[in-house]
Order: sequence, then C-alpha cells, then structure tokens
Amino acid sequence: MTKSTDELDAVHRSNQMWGKRPDMIVRGRLPFNAEPPPSVLAGNEITAVDTFYARNHGPFPDIPADQWRLSIDGRVDKPLTLTYDELTTDFEQHSVVATLACAGNRRAELLAVRPIPGKDPWEHGAISTAEWRGVRLADVLAAAGVRREDGLHVEFLAPDVAQEARPVQSYGSSIPLSKAMSEEVLLAWQMNGQPLPRAHGGPVRVVVPGYIGARSVKWVTTITVQPAPSENYFQALDYRILPPEADADTIPEGEGISLSSLPLNCDILVPTDGEPVTAGALTVRGWAIAGDGHSVERVDVSIDGGHSWRQADLRPAASPWAWSLWSLTVDVEPGPLSITARAWEDTGVTQPESPASLWNPRGYGNNAWAHITASAI
Amino acid sequence: MTKSTDELDAVHRSNQMWGKRPDMIVRGRLPFNAEPPPSVLAGNEITAVDTFYARNHGPFPDIPADQWRLSIDGRVDKPLTLTYDELTTDFEQHSVVATLACAGNRRAELLAVRPIPGKDPWEHGAISTAEWRGVRLADVLAAAGVRREDGLHVEFLAPDVAQEARPVQSYGSSIPLSKAMSEEVLLAWQMNGQPLPRAHGGPVRVVVPGYIGARSVKWVTTITVQPAPSENYFQALDYRILPPEADADTIPEGEGISLSSLPLNCDILVPTDGEPVTAGALTVRGWAIAGDGHSVERVDVSIDGGHSWRQADLRPAASPWAWSLWSLTVDVEPGPLSITARAWEDTGVTQPESPASLWNPRGYGNNAWAHITASAI
Repeated sequence: MTKSTDELDAVHRSNQMWGKRPDMIVRGRLPFNAEPPPSVLAGNEITAVDTFYARNHGPFPDIPADQWRLSIDGRVDKPLTLTYDELTTDFEQHSVVATLACAGNRRAELLAVRPIPGKDPWEHGAISTAEWRGVRLADVLAAAGVRREDGLHVEFLAPDVAQEARPVQSYGSSIPLSKAMSEEVLLAWQMNGQPLPRAHGGPVRVVVPGYIGARSVKWVTTITVQPAPSENYFQALDYRILPPEADADTIPEGEGISLSSLPLNCDILVPTDGEPVTAGALTVRGWAIAGDGHSVERVDVSIDGGHSWRQADLRPAASPWAWSLWSLTVDVEPGPLSITARAWEDTGVTQPESPASLWNPRGYGNNAWAHITASAI
Repeated sequence: MTKSTDELDAVHRSNQMWGKRPDMIVRGRLPFNAEPPPSVLAGNEITAVDTFYARNHGPFPDIPADQWRLSIDGRVDKPLTLTYDELTTDFEQHSVVATLACAGNRRAELLAVRPIPGKDPWEHGAISTAEWRGVRLADVLAAAGVRREDGLHVEFLAPDVAQEARPVQSYGSSIPLSKAMSEEVLLAWQMNGQPLPRAHGGPVRVVVPGYIGARSVKWVTTITVQPAPSENYFQALDYRILPPEADADTIPEGEGISLSSLPLNCDILVPTDGEPVTAGALTVRGWAIAGDGHSVERVDVSIDGGHSWRQADLRPAASPWAWSLWSLTVDVEPGPLSITARAWEDTGVTQPESPASLWNPRGYGNNAWAHITASAI
C-alpha cells in the first residue's frame, strides 16, 4: 500500500503532535491510534513514552491538573471529590511496572482468517510496558468508605467522547471490586518518571495491571462502586468475545464473554513479517505474558512449523504484571523462513495453535502461537 | 484386546474388593487404579462412590479411625497432634462439591501421538465429582499457629508406599500456603455423606479443589509447613510437564513445570469412541471445567471437525470447584461420525486444538479440544 505525500505528512504531524516517534504506524489520526514497529519494542523491558502504543476512542480531553477533579461515589459511606493536589499528597505513593495490551493486539492475524469490519488491523505493537506511579485505588476507595460486599464492581468514567459507541457516549468501563482492591491497581499520574502525557490519560488515569488495556481508563474523573458491571458501551457491548456466528451489529447487551484478565500470550518482535534476514545465526526476540496472577515458565521456538522446538532464553519479568522478554539464536538456511513461538504458564498450560480457531466477530483475544514468515538470503 | 477368564475374574474381584461397580476399567490391581466407562459419568453432577475413579501409587494403608493421628509441624508456633475425635469435633465442619481429576486423565490421546512408557493409558474417566465434608485445613493450620510468611508451602505425607518412586518412598506432595489457607481446602472424612472409604483415603484425606488430584493426599498423617515445595518424588520429579525433548528417566529434580491448578478443559462422555449410534437426533453429553478460580462461560460442539460450531446447553456448576455438565442434541447422518468440543473460560480463553502439540514425556495435562469418532447407522 502506498500513501500520498499529504497522507504521510498528516501521519507524521499526528505522531509529532502526541510526542510519538515518527515511525509509529498510525491506525487513526482522530481518535489517535498508533503502534510502534515491532523491532523497536524488542529487548526493552520498559517501553519509552514516545514508543508506547496509543489506543483511543475519542479526542483527548485537555484537563489542566489544577482543574481536574475525581468523584468517588456509589456503594461508599463517604462519597469524595479529590483534587489533583489531594490525590498526589494525601495518599502513600506506589510504583508498578505493568504491561498494557489492547485486547485487539494481533488482530491482523484474525483478519487474515476472515474480515472484521470497522476494527483496526493491529499487528504486533498494541502492547507496551511502563513504570506507572501513583496511589493505590484501594487506598482511595478505603478513604471513601467503600462497602466490602460480595459481587460489587467499580466503574471508571472519563470525558472523552466516542463517536463509535451506540449511542454516542463518553468512555467508561469497570472491574470487579476484588480486583480494584488489589495492591497493583493504581490511579497514576506518572509514566516512566515523567508526568503522565495527555496522550496517555494525563493528568490522571487508572492502571489495571493484568487486565486488557481497555479497563485502564484514561483521564478518569468519576469512580462509582456499584452492584453490576458498567453499562457503558465499551463494557456492555464492545470488548467481548462473541461466538463466531454472532452478528456484532445486532447482538444484544451482555452477550459474549466480557474480557478482563489478559490471556497467556507471546509474540515475535524480531524478525518481523516479510523482513529479509541474513542466513546463518539469527537471534529471534519477543515477549511472553501469563494470565492475571500467573507467570511464564517456558517459551518454545520452532523454525519447522512446530514439528520440533527449542527453549528460548527467558529473562525474569520486572514485576508479576510485566511481560517476560525472551530470545533465541537459531541457525537459518537461505530461503523461506517460518518462525513459531509458544509460551507455557506456571500451571502447565500453553496457547492454542491457530488464529483460525480463535476468530471472533470483533477480533479480540488472539493468543494463538506467535508466527511470522520471512526469507533468508 | 481379549482377556483370559482368570484376568477378568481378578479384575472383577478387585473392583468388588474396593466397592467399585463391576464395569470399572481397571488399569492396575496393586496399586488399584480404575476409571469408570465415560457414559456412566454423564449427566450426574455428583459421581457415586462406587463409580468414582481410583488413582493410587501404593497398597492402601489400613488405619482404624481411633488409631489415626495427624501431626502438624514445621513453620508453626504450636505443633499439634490430632486424633480423629479431635479433628472431627474441635473444628467447624464444612462441605464442598469438588471435582477431582488425575493429571493423566485423557493421556490415551497423547499416547496416540507418541509412546509414554510406564504410564497408564487413562481415557475419559480419571475425573469424578463428590461432595466432601470435613474441616478447613486453614482452621487446623491456624490452631497450630501457622506463620504467615510469604512463599511458604504445606507438605502432606501419607503412609502408602510407592514402589514406582525413585527411591521407593511413601506418597507425599505439597501446595502453596496461600492455597492451603483458602476456604475450599478440606481435611475430609466424608464423601457423598458416607464415611470416607479406605479406597479413597479414609479415615482422613486432603481435598484441594481446583488442583490436580495428586495434591489431594489420601490417608494423610503428617502436615509440614516449610519454605519450599515438598521434595517427595511425586512433587519434585513426577507430576511435571517436561519439555518434549526431555528424558523422563534421567531428568534432574525440579525440571519441568510443576502441576498445580487444573487447566481449562472439557470432554465428551456420550457417545464415546467407537460406540455405534443411531442416525438422527443424538444428544451429546460431557463436562467442562475452568482453571482455579475461573468459570466456564461457553462450550462449543462441532460435528464437522471444527469448521462450524454450535453452543451446548451448559448447566450451572454445583460450586466454583465442580465441573459444568453440558449437552447438545445434534442431527447425525448415517456414516462416520466425528464430534469435537471446546470450552471457553470467563476470561475469554479457550483450549489448544490438538493433543499432538501438548505431548510431553509423562503424558500430563492434556487439555486439547475433546474429540471422539464413532459411526452412525
């Protein structure tokens, strides 16, 4: 696909406007959606802010920190409204290294099976890792006198308006109270030691490690503790695994499996699809991540389509909520090259083989074996 | 395979001796190992005691209740020795409906890929569900003044001697203290309202819902809280997912992935492999179970090899630790019949497709799509 000079200029300007490196692959300019080329993610436990993927549903709110307010209401005994100063000075501060991933990362492989209208063709880059700093959501909820009843949910609302929602509405979602009270869940105002950029939810966002990125609501302004999951479009209708035969346009609210924790998954970042490589010793690099609360125990790499495997060198993850980077040097013959990788969790579980068996009408949750093809010269 | 009358008599006698129905498929007489034919498991949330699979590593200890003692020691402030009377009267009693499954259930499908020497060819029946009654392990550990340090493990030892172990030793295993303190983990002396039979660990066994059956130690007599997992053969060497290229006979202790929580899995119980069925409406029945702490959200059934799927009717599970039974009536043409099923977890995760990609040297953890072939007349 070739792009006109005007288009390339516009892409370049949008990357520049949001502090992104010029080689980000822009999936949409408004709302701004972009992913880094896979090779620039490789080998770095922490993704630079200018490289971190951007996944958005509306234009970015522009909220000066001194005008930002956060309301906490619902099933709480002492509803609160906090200013930025109060949030950042009244509670103990914590940092967590956490990988965020869009539920649609690796959708391109599902698209190759069957079309998925209206959804961006994310390839390998809708996943990144940062060190987030802020306060525990649990501490803020406790200050509001949160009720500890079974089955409660915590809804996050933000002012960014999503034209794609039916009806048009601002963005929101929810997580179970049990997860919200876990120590890794933050209200964050720093990313890699810098003030949280507007493009990443500044002044303050939610960070829900271990869950799909869609639950880490940016520009959060309202938190409601309630007896049921959010009725927001992005919780009740989108971000669900629908059965393959379902019609995404007419399916009623609440159908399908609502996404929450990330599945066991891995991907190959170097080399990437179609990249010419030199025959001989080739170092394959990638990431692996386990489901919420689990760890990656092993990553296997195959250059014969899964007939035989070798174990990759697996770096310890920076935190229980971060990806594990892996690499393996293989010997490559000239000619077509096929590389497959799969991860194993601490429970002995591994990934499904093929995107074909995971295809779903909205193209979420692809955690099939990682696979790329290239050629060696 | 035909068996001599003598063999059939011996099988019949061993089933009778241990209170099992005569049609149990006996995998070994000493130690006694047997699984029910799949059809008798179908449709029953609770498995009758005479039908419940038996998986053992040594001859059954014969411990009268009044001579049974349980020692609790290690990282506890008040080491305890309890009698049966004390265990059954000094603590609050609880019941839990829990499915136990052998980590080697469905090994026959892995064996069809490549040989697995020295391991029983369990088919569809090394899984059953009972209502267990006893006291919480957490309450007993609390009475012993268990230390609440991070990273501790709880080892269970029993007097049954396993000739297969290297060196020969009595059976033991361990679970993390965090799981041991969970309310579902019991020291049980009743099964489906009856005193726990000797064949199932009577007078008292551990029941660890959500974990592989091997951790639910029968005839338990010693519980030790310790800083590392058990060094018993069955924890340190067996019950691990080894990489496919490993040599199970020479691999050192601690290699491979130690099994703990059961993986997302399902199976077809009716019809079963090779069973002739009548063309027309056919009700397919089976079970599905999710990983520890999760639930089954959907079961798909295919009669065209996974090309198209229909959703099965899924009965609510009797507890978070029990299987979910499912059924679906399909229309069957005369001729060869292939039925495939797969389950989806509440996180949107589904099972790997093929046993070939899960083959491992000890044949554990097969959670590939369920598959049977038969013929319709």
